Amino acid sequence: TGVAMMKFKSPPVNSLSLDFLTEFCISLEKLENNRACRGVIFTSAVPKIFSSGLDITEMCGKSTEHYAEFWRAVQEMWLQLYGSNMVTVAAVNGSSPAGGCLLALSCDYRIMVENPKFSIGLNEAQLGIVAPFWFKDTFVNIVGHRVAERSLQLGSLHAAPEALRFGLVDELVAEEKLQEKAAAVMAQWLALPDHARQLTKSMMRKAMLDRLVAHREEDIQNFISFISKESIQKSLRMYMEMLKKKKS
Amino acid sequence: TGVAMMKFKSPPVNSLSLDFLTEFCISLEKLENNRACRGVIFTSAVPKIFSSGLDITEMCGKSTEHYAEFWRAVQEMWLQLYGSNMVTVAAVNGSSPAGGCLLALSCDYRIMVENPKFSIGLNEAQLGIVAPFWFKDTFVNIVGHRVAERSLQLGSLHAAPEALRFGLVDELVAEEKLQEKAAAVMAQWLALPDHARQLTKSMMRKAMLDRLVAHREEDIQNFISFISKESIQKSLRMYMEMLKKKKS
Amino acid sequence: TGVAMMKFKSPPVNSLSLDFLTEFCISLEKLENNRACRGVIFTSAVPKIFSSGLDITEMCGKSTEHYAEFWRAVQEMWLQLYGSNMVTVAAVNGSSPAGGCLLALSCDYRIMVENPKFSIGLNEAQLGIVAPFWFKDTFVNIVGHRVAERSLQLGSLHAAPEALRFGLVDELVAEEKLQEKAAAVMAQWLALPDHARQLTKSMMRKAMLDRLVAHREEDIQNFISFISKESIQKSLRMYMEMLKKKKS
Repeated sequence: TGVAMMKFKSPPVNSLSLDFLTEFCISLEKLENNRACRGVIFTSAVPKIFSSGLDITEMCGKSTEHYAEFWRAVQEMWLQLYGSNMVTVAAVNGSSPAGGCLLALSCDYRIMVENPKFSIGLNEAQLGIVAPFWFKDTFVNIVGHRVAERSLQLGSLHAAPEALRFGLVDELVAEEKLQEKAAAVMAQWLALPDHARQLTKSMMRKAMLDRLVAHREEDIQNFISFISKESIQKSLRMYMEMLKKKKS
Repeated sequence: TGVAMMKFKSPPVNSLSLDFLTEFCISLEKLENNRACRGVIFTSAVPKIFSSGLDITEMCGKSTEHYAEFWRAVQEMWLQLYGSNMVTVAAVNGSSPAGGCLLALSCDYRIMVENPKFSIGLNEAQLGIVAPFWFKDTFVNIVGHRVAERSLQLGSLHAAPEALRFGLVDELVAEEKLQEKAAAVMAQWLALPDHARQLTKSMMRKAMLDRLVAHREEDIQNFISFISKESIQKSLRMYMEMLKKKKS
Repeated sequence: TGVAMMKFKSPPVNSLSLDFLTEFCISLEKLENNRACRGVIFTSAVPKIFSSGLDITEMCGKSTEHYAEFWRAVQEMWLQLYGSNMVTVAAVNGSSPAGGCLLALSCDYRIMVENPKFSIGLNEAQLGIVAPFWFKDTFVNIVGHRVAERSLQLGSLHAAPEALRFGLVDELVAEEKLQEKAAAVMAQWLALPDHARQLTKSMMRKAMLDRLVAHREEDIQNFISFISKESIQKSLRMYMEMLKKKKS
């Protein structure tokens, strides 16, 4: 049918580690270069979680070189996904904070399971860190400046019904209908001539993609100098401790 | 009363041919230079259609010179209408796809007949073509980035109730109330001092108008090279065939 | 608790005179430099009015030097408030036209008393004058381009329920619950780490603040040349006469 399915299976929470990101980018590039493939549906094989976002262990107590490599991989994921020529649909079957939210926001369409226990949002501020400008721009383009300003400052995670109300996701469906719905949406988008759809998508997104490409090294340096601060390292360690306690 | 009415009467579908556009611009300029005229209401004399948009026959099998002349006329229509000092109200009494939608979007206010059979939208992608950046910017300014991104990629035509929900039109009224409502809206806008209203309008729109003026020749060249492609010509011919079959 | 309350008490209508603005800026700067203070709630001690906006007597029949000094003070208020590192909450307990609306829009969050007799908006056009670009940009960032374009051209004052619908304020509460609600919202915002919240706020607002800083003198000259026009002076005198008659 020309549609691929990419199912995230990196238990326990599909965190975006360097390995995950590398594999994601290789897989996406293969699909991108496969002329038979016109669309991709992203979903999770892990119950209750779509993706927990950037892997905090990659940002804690590592070398400058590691931070640079990791951040370049995060950028690469966004550049490839936001700029993909394929139709990209996120079938969000679980919570999706921070980088997991960015992944969903970078698709063309988002369907979320209508479970109010599942939430989505760019909650970086809660961890004491700040979303980079291209996370912010992606978010503003979807929910508008005001909702973004408030949500980013509060580090809000929006439960599914609120996520729909704010336009963070495009629709909610029952979990058992998710794949059927994703396939139907994909068919609707693929009914358009690829060439016109791709040029239109590029017209909407190119300025933003170009902005990161132009400032890529600077953005990496910003990340390194921010994440290397002792106060930030301490915040992240405390956050990881909290997560561990929560689990046990 | 200082209010003019421009009634489109170019059967069967008020398509924006070179002749139509030329006459539109001459008429609008006359009103603009007439100090007694402070507002214009645009509506259609053709049943069920406001305007079907750019005349496809002007873009099919013609010379490069013709394409250039036609595209310059399309630009001119938008520059004059979007930048008009008068209050401009679209009384949308029928469907309004593509260029017809742009015409309505370029006014200060849009009232649409509440008939769900009437639709409006920038559906260029359905024809295999791409709306130029200034169509896109006009659309984004009205419905926001997210709605625009989705609608443009899908080439959506929105039935009147959905058009209202997305903010594509400002209100719906029964057909028999349309002219009365348009006159009432016009009176409300004309109650403001012209000078302050015009400066405010210019503050909101000048950057966009300047952008096309600065890139006008480039935009014409883009149009010519795009429309001259054999694949695009083929798409348009197929679309015209489909329209003919539909009619008969 | 680290939260200050600034209560406007300049009867009869809390108009933003040069004295008011000067005192406002001195007070805000003191709080900004007080490390114990993390948030400010703005409200009015005058019944039924939050702030009536710029004091028209400062713009009528005065010297060029006076206009320059006054306008610099208006700019300063916005630069300090919009760029504040503290959490800023407007507890809007009365009407808030023009500059009063700007003051509220420059905060992080707006709670308005749910009295439909209280209204808010940038109604400058009604007075025959034009909101400067940074009033407009602040407004657009909150309500979006389309609502801003219409509201600014019509000089609309939105009654509380409509203000909520357009996103001009974030919520409505009964008058007796206003202070309690403001304190609760403040606590929610202060629960975030200051550093991450401040950097996020700056990321959202810095480009706009920089734009005024870069064009500050030009903006003052624009104001002076506009306000010095005899036609504008006449409009303002007529408006003041109307206000006087309304009162008596």
